Amino acid sequence: MSILVVGSVAFDSIETPHGKVQKCLGGAATHFALAASYFTDVRVIAVVGEDFGPEQEAVFTKRGIDTRGIEHANGLSFHWTGEYSGNLNEARTLGTDLNVFADFEPKIPEAYLDSEYLFLANIDPKLQAKVRAQMPHAKLVCGDTMNYWIADHRESLLEVLKELDVLLINDGEVRMLSGEHNTVRGAEKVLAMGPKSLVVKHGEYGATAFFGARAFPHAETTAKPFRAPALPLAEVVDPTGAGDSFAGGFYGYLASQPAVTPAAYRRALFYGGVMGSFAVERFGTERLQNVRLAEIEDRFKLFKEISHLEEHQGLGVA
Amino acid sequence: MSILVVGSVAFDSIETPHGKVQKCLGGAATHFALAASYFTDVRVIAVVGEDFGPEQEAVFTKRGIDTRGIEHANGLSFHWTGEYSGNLNEARTLGTDLNVFADFEPKIPEAYLDSEYLFLANIDPKLQAKVRAQMPHAKLVCGDTMNYWIADHRESLLEVLKELDVLLINDGEVRMLSGEHNTVRGAEKVLAMGPKSLVVKHGEYGATAFFGARAFPHAETTAKPFRAPALPLAEVVDPTGAGDSFAGGFYGYLASQPAVTPAAYRRALFYGGVMGSFAVERFGTERLQNVRLAEIEDRFKLFKEISHLEEHQGLGVA
Repeated sequence: MSILVVGSVAFDSIETPHGKVQKCLGGAATHFALAASYFTDVRVIAVVGEDFGPEQEAVFTKRGIDTRGIEHANGLSFHWTGEYSGNLNEARTLGTDLNVFADFEPKIPEAYLDSEYLFLANIDPKLQAKVRAQMPHAKLVCGDTMNYWIADHRESLLEVLKELDVLLINDGEVRMLSGEHNTVRGAEKVLAMGPKSLVVKHGEYGATAFFGARAFPHAETTAKPFRAPALPLAEVVDPTGAGDSFAGGFYGYLASQPAVTPAAYRRALFYGGVMGSFAVERFGTERLQNVRLAEIEDRFKLFKEISHLEEHQGLGVA
Repeated sequence: MSILVVGSVAFDSIETPHGKVQKCLGGAATHFALAASYFTDVRVIAVVGEDFGPEQEAVFTKRGIDTRGIEHANGLSFHWTGEYSGNLNEARTLGTDLNVFADFEPKIPEAYLDSEYLFLANIDPKLQAKVRAQMPHAKLVCGDTMNYWIADHRESLLEVLKELDVLLINDGEVRMLSGEHNTVRGAEKVLAMGPKSLVVKHGEYGATAFFGARAFPHAETTAKPFRAPALPLAEVVDPTGAGDSFAGGFYGYLASQPAVTPAAYRRALFYGGVMGSFAVERFGTERLQNVRLAEIEDRFKLFKEISHLEEHQGLGVA
């Protein structure tokens, strides 16, 4: 089923210990859409400037991504400049030129209104709410956010949270949003704010999903938390977009399934990890533009291999 | 098969957000021995003072632990005072009274010399080396350490590492010992220092095992890394000894198996997580003194349930 994603399509200038790139294609919606495109149809709502030309457009269309919702405005596209050092876990932002993104007013093309899966990438929660309101028939709504919105736009964010089926969030954001040090208690508090389930990302340690009572309407009991691993990587070339690629793999796989069951959700977490692990192998979107389905399946098997036990007899007690 | 553990048997005075205890039984060898005792025979080498009486002795003997190697010296036992606040991830040490432990010279009783599994808990690497040298026929040698020995006793520690089959270590210690930010590259460097395999502990995120080429002599290829989860816990009463209990569950299960195979090693990591998760439920050793085997099996199943996928068809590519 089709996913509608709203978020940033941007240019990134990035320096990591592995090199430097100037104005390569980036943005949350870009990484998300590319990762999700291996599993299902994807439609993008974003705004770009005059520096976004046929070359950038082709990155989307070659993957079959619908770009009719990408608005072309006068001026330059959103441009982020950042660098990573040391363990590559945290980016240092050197520049954020919002450009045409500063006045972004998402417009949903008529042809997108039947999208059943909605993904609200990390943008102003006020815009997330506007898009959500225009898609009343979306079957599943998933949203991302960041520390900035939690700290400085809390009221708007709380409004959006009420509308979400799934919230993607990281450990630090759970603590910030809930005021709880303990992740489990923090997750419970965030679930009480509205989302039916949470995916808490732990960076290089994977992710944990927490489920509220309404996460799976047909399930008899509340689903237990689920922990998905990340691949231990000896080399991360560029972590930019890893979280959005995780989101794309997760939500893309979920949308490709006949129903959102606990089993499908758990597998989706693994596919999220798989797509995130590809994303960081090259700068920008380079790797995500060219992954073979067989590579995805091989890596999925690898994720299982590094985290699953063989069958055995147990300790022999009742 | 029997495990011989050498390490501290101590008294701990602990304050956490859940309460306060004065001089409860603790020490690395204590937590390790109790956790391992559910899987196999355990023999302890340690030194205690006059404050260690029949009540403390009974904690060991009730679990069938052999205490003939616990030396009784004049003076007081090792006494650690510490507190935890906030997320309970890190202890603040308020006092370390080594007392009789300051002059600890491990002596191995004749009856212990046939122990096939040796565990060198976190003590001075010089003492670890002395014990190791007296147990030339040990089938498997596993060691623990800490930042203090890495920073200030590096040469002695490097000598011990050459003698180890398995090293237990945490993320920060891998970085410190290897000088590498990246855990995978760090693990490779530490493996090159001698241990045939490493268990890297990630606190609330579980643990990853890394294997060298000689980890499993009968295996045709080097085993892939393996990630074991930790249980998401809403309440940690007292984290003291969690790492030692993990070690006891891990090594105890391994020693109970007919052979050290990759499959047994992976399960052992899960049993390590299981015993660590029990340990933190109460202050000191209270919980580890009374766990039923059926509880261990139930929790092992829970660990599988929160980390394992159901069988499925994949994406349908070759």
